[in-house]
Amino acid sequence: MTTQQLYVQILKKKSFLCIGLDVDLNKIPTHLLNTEDPIFEFNKAIIDATHDLAVAYKPNTAFYEAYGIKGWRSLEKTINYLNQKHPEIFTIADAKRGDIGNTSAMYAKAFLEDLAFDSVTVAPYMGKDSVEPFLAVKDKFTILLALTSNEGAFDFQTQKTGHGELYKTVLTTSKTWENSDNLMYVIGATKAEYFTEVRKIVPNSFLLVPGVGAQGGSLHEVCRYGMNDTVGLLINSSRGIIYASKGEDFAEKAREEAKKMQQEMETILLDAQLAKALNII
Amino acid sequence: MTTQQLYVQILKKKSFLCIGLDVDLNKIPTHLLNTEDPIFEFNKAIIDATHDLAVAYKPNTAFYEAYGIKGWRSLEKTINYLNQKHPEIFTIADAKRGDIGNTSAMYAKAFLEDLAFDSVTVAPYMGKDSVEPFLAVKDKFTILLALTSNEGAFDFQTQKTGHGELYKTVLTTSKTWENSDNLMYVIGATKAEYFTEVRKIVPNSFLLVPGVGAQGGSLHEVCRYGMNDTVGLLINSSRGIIYASKGEDFAEKAREEAKKMQQEMETILLDAQLAKALNII
Repeated sequence: MTTQQLYVQILKKKSFLCIGLDVDLNKIPTHLLNTEDPIFEFNKAIIDATHDLAVAYKPNTAFYEAYGIKGWRSLEKTINYLNQKHPEIFTIADAKRGDIGNTSAMYAKAFLEDLAFDSVTVAPYMGKDSVEPFLAVKDKFTILLALTSNEGAFDFQTQKTGHGELYKTVLTTSKTWENSDNLMYVIGATKAEYFTEVRKIVPNSFLLVPGVGAQGGSLHEVCRYGMNDTVGLLINSSRGIIYASKGEDFAEKAREEAKKMQQEMETILLDAQLAKALNII
Repeated sequence: MTTQQLYVQILKKKSFLCIGLDVDLNKIPTHLLNTEDPIFEFNKAIIDATHDLAVAYKPNTAFYEAYGIKGWRSLEKTINYLNQKHPEIFTIADAKRGDIGNTSAMYAKAFLEDLAFDSVTVAPYMGKDSVEPFLAVKDKFTILLALTSNEGAFDFQTQKTGHGELYKTVLTTSKTWENSDNLMYVIGATKAEYFTEVRKIVPNSFLLVPGVGAQGGSLHEVCRYGMNDTVGLLINSSRGIIYASKGEDFAEKAREEAKKMQQEMETILLDAQLAKALNII
């Protein structure tokens, strides 16, 4: 997939919503627990109910690895279902990997080639040669952690370095890496005021934004400071949507929550377009 | 396992060798490819041939994930074999994980509880709440990336921050986290001169040291600057041992390479003891 295709999908669906498929067996409706693969059945129902409202889905691999081999089978079935049924959807393996060169190449193979996700999240701590093997995969994206949405983000990411705060050094340095066109970045919504700084360094990149809703970030603030000419944002929501109900109506309720976010996004997109039009006049 | 038990094992085996089980099907003897589970058969043979020379084994999860469900099955069988056959051995899941709190808790469950590794490697970029869920698991260890052995380590880890270079900030900050007694650190052997600095901050912690051999680090240099009163080092070697031969004699040749390292370590341990004794006199 190209970013142009992603942009077209955003315009078509009037949405830049990413739904996080972080499936915890303790939180899904109990009637699903009797099926052969409860995690996949849950994901399938959520995808069926929301695919016209979201442009991306993001399973976090931790939730699948926690169930061992069974979990990996569910992950495999979920990505296959998305790729076969909804090839226009942008898929993200939220794996936060990163290792020395030959090892990162194994992770890149696992997520971008074998499982055929469109993108994978990667941690920057080990630097250039730990990220470039992911960037080397053609027509796929590497979503680099820059400024995350959790409290611990302030431990290291905002430490002042010679080139400004660490997350800025990560953004600036990553732009010099080979195939850096294949980069996107994770920027947490709980730190909306930072988006201005981020956009100074990476004006054109897509940003994956967790932390709206459950973690307290505001969609409007993020869009105000973070949106660019081709939208450039994927706003992730996990728990707020997928666990909207624990009853038999869980998919329907998930759709209602996704619809609310899509409608907010539609308003924001229209306002942005109007503002653009007014500027032209 | 406790660090005391690990120390006793080191004294008993006169070795602080960790063998990295980074199994690549393109590199293992071809006669194993006809077995039902070549990766496990390879690991089993390596473990059988070297378990009296090594105190720890470290499968890197990337090499298993690259083979999907089959790979996870091989990983599961490998750790089960180690835990059942050699419970004294210290096991490390080299996973380099790290995510927001509830997600890190899932990874901690996967590696430290379900797979029952003694320890797991964790990336520090997301800070305190991304690491503490791992530290919360009793009698298990979290091996935090501090200064890695690859070239990219100089991109961010050695950036000057307000509190000294980033890896020092990571070391210092991590000591304030809950259950920090369960911390060990990754410090690459290719940067032996840094061990003096590291030991000023974490004098008592065990350090997992990759990069001896294949990546060019010197065992003697590392021990000179990094060893403490209870040794405090686990020196990892992967390719140099497990791929010593691609023939039917691979396990035997792996043993020869492991033996060479163990003997170097024995000499170093005796010298250190002698130096200690001379100091007492």
